Amino acid sequence: MPTIYLNGQYLPRESATLSIDDRGFIFGDGVYEVTRVVNGVLFESSRHLARLGRGLADMRLHPEESLADIEAISNRLVQENGLQQGEAIVYLQITRGAAPRTHHFPPAGTRCTVFLSAKAITPPHAERAVGVKVVTYPDIRWSRCDIKTVNLIPAVLAKQHAMDHGVFESIFVRESAITEGSHTNCFGVIDGELRTYPASNLILGGVTRDVTIEVAHELGIPFSDRPFHIQDLPRLQEFFLTGTTTDVMPVVEIDGKAVGNGRPGTVTQALYDGVARRLYAATPAVR
Amino acid sequence: MPTIYLNGQYLPRESATLSIDDRGFIFGDGVYEVTRVVNGVLFESSRHLARLGRGLADMRLHPEESLADIEAISNRLVQENGLQQGEAIVYLQITRGAAPRTHHFPPAGTRCTVFLSAKAITPPHAERAVGVKVVTYPDIRWSRCDIKTVNLIPAVLAKQHAMDHGVFESIFVRESAITEGSHTNCFGVIDGELRTYPASNLILGGVTRDVTIEVAHELGIPFSDRPFHIQDLPRLQEFFLTGTTTDVMPVVEIDGKAVGNGRPGTVTQALYDGVARRLYAATPAVR
Repeated sequence: MPTIYLNGQYLPRESATLSIDDRGFIFGDGVYEVTRVVNGVLFESSRHLARLGRGLADMRLHPEESLADIEAISNRLVQENGLQQGEAIVYLQITRGAAPRTHHFPPAGTRCTVFLSAKAITPPHAERAVGVKVVTYPDIRWSRCDIKTVNLIPAVLAKQHAMDHGVFESIFVRESAITEGSHTNCFGVIDGELRTYPASNLILGGVTRDVTIEVAHELGIPFSDRPFHIQDLPRLQEFFLTGTTTDVMPVVEIDGKAVGNGRPGTVTQALYDGVARRLYAATPAVR
Repeated sequence: MPTIYLNGQYLPRESATLSIDDRGFIFGDGVYEVTRVVNGVLFESSRHLARLGRGLADMRLHPEESLADIEAISNRLVQENGLQQGEAIVYLQITRGAAPRTHHFPPAGTRCTVFLSAKAITPPHAERAVGVKVVTYPDIRWSRCDIKTVNLIPAVLAKQHAMDHGVFESIFVRESAITEGSHTNCFGVIDGELRTYPASNLILGGVTRDVTIEVAHELGIPFSDRPFHIQDLPRLQEFFLTGTTTDVMPVVEIDGKAVGNGRPGTVTQALYDGVARRLYAATPAVR
């Protein structure tokens, strides 16, 4: 049985339970992170921890566990769950703890709920080989999408919308701009230039997004963080998604219309190769 | 110890626990209701149930318990917790159940989590006598505020902002319009006319809001569901909040500036009296 971490204890997953008063349950009052693990090594751990730190500050959450503790717990869960080889993720969630329901913060001394788990995954390499389809979905989210909170209903409804249409992902449209996917960031190539929605309060600044931009710079691919819009879609030469479990994923169809020539593009492939080099740098055996 | 209802069972509150995989905890993927109880009688139960039904439909949630079951469970909890006399509330929450984390809906057959509890409350009559203060807060919420979901971080942050300023409530401002409070609706009196933000996707259509509007019609008070704006605040003759536990609450100060003459207004008082007549109709002994 998998071992998880909950509030200072390492427990079998089945025996870990939450209070009915947990503010995660009552208000969705918490933040989370998903970190990729390759052959037992956390990928870009410091970026995930830095983003977590910003989210905790913005949400005024003060867990007992430090960011260094979080990293140590993550590494221990990787070991305890036998994930030293192959592909895995660590899931982390921190909420404002359990207390009688009040909208305002609970009494001082209420301990944040800190939950971590780890499990093996299979990256979507098969989908990557041929590319995936996506549909658009109205961006009905709040205006602090930059905080990685568990108030995720819009992402749930958008992803289910994709499933209902038999496609991989929904991409959000706000005032005609493509912001990001339900749990991915979006990039397009237009007139030879790589573009993505700028880091702002309207998107989650993905770790893989940042790595992809760095790789683009390394490869000398022209890049601009200007948004692209619904009316730009016919001009797209390439389109792809990035994410912690998605890596770089070519999109060959949006709302039933082919992107470019309808096949994964060369810029997308070059960027995936560059991201994969970092991901698998220390551990070439996995690829 | 209080008795609660969780997934078909009546349990002592302390022994009720949730799965760490509950989608309420992981995604805030659920809806809720708070219903007022006076001397053992649920107030406006059919309106709460109708709103719950709409929310379940919008969220595509399908609990095993029918709306009639929910009402019966609510009534049983009132009895079992000895709330046949005095003031109380029933809290209800329904989430998409516990399942391995995927943004899209869980497998068919995953049982929704259904949780209800009941407890005594003390209505804020002391505050009502003198009126309360509020502060404004940017309306950073999503664009489906009409669904009563537990994605409540903006309400949490706004209410805490009020606490930080030593006042009763924060009121949301979206593009200069006053939409509603963090857990109340807002009404103003301008040029003798009662106004409130129109029922739309940008506010939660409160039960007490609806009752207040009905009472205004009965009393012949001119009413318009036109929004009022930040720049209208100096013209406010009266301002008040409505809510399930707040009833009708006069506001005498917004962002440090007096409303009207700085005392609870006569229209507000007349509307409170009308709402209270309905609330305490069958049970005059409580007031």
